[in-house]
Amino acid sequence: MPQGQPVSVPDDGLTTRQRRNRPLLIVHTGQMKGKSTAAFGLALRGWNQGWSTAVFQFVKSARWSVGEENALRALDQVHAQTGQGGPVAWYKMGAGWSWSRTQGTEADHAAQAAEGWAEIKRRLAATAHDLYVLDEFTYPMKWGWVDVEEVVDTLRQRPGRQHVVITGRDADPRLVDAADLVAEMTKIKHPMDAGQKGQRGIEW
Amino acid sequence: MPQGQPVSVPDDGLTTRQRRNRPLLIVHTGQMKGKSTAAFGLALRGWNQGWSTAVFQFVKSARWSVGEENALRALDQVHAQTGQGGPVAWYKMGAGWSWSRTQGTEADHAAQAAEGWAEIKRRLAATAHDLYVLDEFTYPMKWGWVDVEEVVDTLRQRPGRQHVVITGRDADPRLVDAADLVAEMTKIKHPMDAGQKGQRGIEW
Repeated sequence: MPQGQPVSVPDDGLTTRQRRNRPLLIVHTGQMKGKSTAAFGLALRGWNQGWSTAVFQFVKSARWSVGEENALRALDQVHAQTGQGGPVAWYKMGAGWSWSRTQGTEADHAAQAAEGWAEIKRRLAATAHDLYVLDEFTYPMKWGWVDVEEVVDTLRQRPGRQHVVITGRDADPRLVDAADLVAEMTKIKHPMDAGQKGQRGIEW
Repeated sequence: MPQGQPVSVPDDGLTTRQRRNRPLLIVHTGQMKGKSTAAFGLALRGWNQGWSTAVFQFVKSARWSVGEENALRALDQVHAQTGQGGPVAWYKMGAGWSWSRTQGTEADHAAQAAEGWAEIKRRLAATAHDLYVLDEFTYPMKWGWVDVEEVVDTLRQRPGRQHVVITGRDADPRLVDAADLVAEMTKIKHPMDAGQKGQRGIEW
């Protein structure tokens, strides 16, 4: 783990405290599944800080992260009932976002993704949350369902102290350039290489 | 993410179902902090499956994962009170393991690490848990505080269906060889490179 000592001190006119509290744009990319899992692990830390966390899953199937979803929803309930931790909201693109009246179909993923991004943009402008997890959001960016330049500009100019974590393979170089922290998860060995299929509790 | 299709079917005499339910030894290694975070994310999935999970932190400071610890302890409470999910036990080497009567000091990390491993070995033999997270356990292995051959043999021969996740840099090649899944977290960009220190909610 990093030992807490920066390798250099930037000439940005900020105090250490200001710099420490700078909102971060984090990207988890690479070939391995740990990308989303690590992002949901970050959400645990945010919960413990009392942050308002919102997860937006840009995936066709809700199957893969159902374990994390149920656990984070349970933590949201703990917050609602005891005041411990913070609130967690969880949205899935699947068959239409839960805030949307228009129920989506399998055919209009592009429109759903654009609608999801439009909502995130509204929330960022309103500083609605402390932590946003945009799970698998690199794919709508890659497939042109959202405008990469507009996404990156919006993220760069977001107000307040809102952390954003974006996961998915093939992160756009402009997103990587804008990010404060980029981690790549690399496969060294995977049980599917040895003919094993995904299993309950490990893969979802 | 892997699309669920194995690249080959092994000639191991197992059915797909048997293979699917094989207990996994997972290693998260590499330079980035996501190693532990992704392991705790896996614990969320295990919790949702109703698994008994035990976390053993082989670190000097308990500071880094306090967010995950509090969140997983809260989920353990949810289980105790409502039956949802599974139990989560969390142990820290810090100043002596909580099951131990001998309170450790800063000077005897090697003895504490050996005692921690001895307890894990007992629990594996008793099939006490479904998921073990041995956080930062690569370091006691690297520093000779535990015998690598004995650790690997014990893990290879563990009975039942017990998943084990080991995190930390510089995983021993013998551990990598024994593992079913090895993920490496690589730093592409980190805010400490730009002079930023660790911050609450993100680094711990």
